[in-house]
Amino acid sequence: MAQNVYDNPEFLAGYQNLPRSREGLAGAPEWPSLRAMLPPLAGARVLDLGCGFGWFARFAREQGASHVLGLDVSERMLARAAEMTRDDAIEYRRADLDAAGFPESAFDLVFSSLALHYIVDLGALIGRIARALKPGGAMVVSMEHPVFQAPPRKEWAEHEGRRIWPLQDYFREGPRLTDWFVPDVQMHHRTMGTILRYILGAGLALTHLEEWCPDAAQIALHPEWEKELDRPIFLLLAARKP
Amino acid sequence: MAQNVYDNPEFLAGYQNLPRSREGLAGAPEWPSLRAMLPPLAGARVLDLGCGFGWFARFAREQGASHVLGLDVSERMLARAAEMTRDDAIEYRRADLDAAGFPESAFDLVFSSLALHYIVDLGALIGRIARALKPGGAMVVSMEHPVFQAPPRKEWAEHEGRRIWPLQDYFREGPRLTDWFVPDVQMHHRTMGTILRYILGAGLALTHLEEWCPDAAQIALHPEWEKELDRPIFLLLAARKP
Repeated sequence: MAQNVYDNPEFLAGYQNLPRSREGLAGAPEWPSLRAMLPPLAGARVLDLGCGFGWFARFAREQGASHVLGLDVSERMLARAAEMTRDDAIEYRRADLDAAGFPESAFDLVFSSLALHYIVDLGALIGRIARALKPGGAMVVSMEHPVFQAPPRKEWAEHEGRRIWPLQDYFREGPRLTDWFVPDVQMHHRTMGTILRYILGAGLALTHLEEWCPDAAQIALHPEWEKELDRPIFLLLAARKP
Repeated sequence: MAQNVYDNPEFLAGYQNLPRSREGLAGAPEWPSLRAMLPPLAGARVLDLGCGFGWFARFAREQGASHVLGLDVSERMLARAAEMTRDDAIEYRRADLDAAGFPESAFDLVFSSLALHYIVDLGALIGRIARALKPGGAMVVSMEHPVFQAPPRKEWAEHEGRRIWPLQDYFREGPRLTDWFVPDVQMHHRTMGTILRYILGAGLALTHLEEWCPDAAQIALHPEWEKELDRPIFLLLAARKP
């Protein structure tokens, strides 16, 4: 199963201070891009994998979704989500996404924001996502980009006086440990080719692939994000079940 | 239009000594992967963009293709291709792929091997490819991978005692100059997201995306290729016209 670092109090103390935790979707710089990939939500049944504090679940309901099932491995995040939610059509459940079974042909949208890079067996999960979608349903997900995930250490380097992203081990798939609020947060690296093979192999049709980078307005507000033009950090994908 | 470096005698003198020039398809390490992505060729009408010395055109005919139109900007390569070909069902024509018009709904396969990274306006070319395909027809192409193409200099670097690929400027699309047999060979960088947007935007369905890397047998034969596990060098794509 995926590591449950979000229930580590020291990790959570750091994570809950990120803009994306405090401000919700508006605090996530990739959210406008991800939002633009969503299907119409009015009347939709939604599955949110790695729902965290429930920001997307509540957004989906505001947009008219008829029901949202939010799954997360973190008990502490789910408790916080429940505190912030007064809505009988949102259901939060604790689940290890590497093992959970989903209802079949049940959802118009399976959504996941920055959770899939924690999953050990992504191919199996995408197969379960495909079966959970109704025909015509959509999968819209974000994850850390393989080029960001691949190197043994996620740190910028310098080469000939310029900042570079030191890519290594791109084709060596498997666990990656990183220090993020606490030591040894475990994520899993697979190539873009592998991720696309999982999606197409599950019978889904790719409808959108986006590598997020900040736009000029975001860089004007956050000049330190300009370095994100040197490497792709997030991968955003949308696919449809025929 | 794309730079026509293949008609530079100094460049061609170097290029013609590469295994892929001397031995043809068998000398291209990515060929087995690309071949596996091809549709059945028996009876197929084929368009080969950047046909070079004609190796693929002759292969397609051996596999039963009914007609192959090979286009290339290089007069010298086309002359060599014609010398090596005795086949009325193969037609070679000189064309700037950034400007050439193609017959519409005419081909079962549009193939291109390592030519698209020379194209200035890839989006427009992919639109013309989509229109040139018959319904149900396939596009199968290889190109230099965006991660290989992005840095201002295509050279390995060292970081903390390990070989790295110094990624820079990934989101800064546009021309790249590289020294390859001659100075200032011009290629064009665009991100994976842009390439996929062109394909999906042209109404094609992605059927396969592969990032080539050498397999264990290839590394045993060519130990120097082991470094290719650190970075993706070639991008192989297949798509289908609905």
